[in-house]
Amino acid sequence: MCEANAYLRKQGEEDELFLEMVDHVLPHEDGLMLEDIFGKRKMIKAKIVELALVDHKIILERA
Amino acid sequence: MCEANAYLRKQGEEDELFLEMVDHVLPHEDGLMLEDIFGKRKMIKAKIVELALVDHKIILERA
Repeated sequence: MCEANAYLRKQGEEDELFLEMVDHVLPHEDGLMLEDIFGKRKMIKAKIVELALVDHKIILERA
Repeated sequence: MCEANAYLRKQGEEDELFLEMVDHVLPHEDGLMLEDIFGKRKMIKAKIVELALVDHKIILERA
């Protein structure tokens, strides 16, 4: 399976895990909707700042 | 390998393949920089409108 983990990037800190095993990411009027492979959804006011798919990483920053 | 293919979405048309086997996506001052698993890079004035990672798809729309 080629899901990825979504991390929140904060200045001067380590990336913080936000949601594991993400399948879908969709822009929403007020940020992003992430859905994992089990259908669990989380919303966040953030933008994508990096995808590193071979490393299974989605990096987000709060918008 | 968990790379994905990047497609360009156009209204009323089928998604058009833009770059295969994408590993990295990074925002750029004027759009996105996509890099495939071989290190080949393509720039595009576009935004991410959907990720479907289990299906290996990145969907873009011109900004």
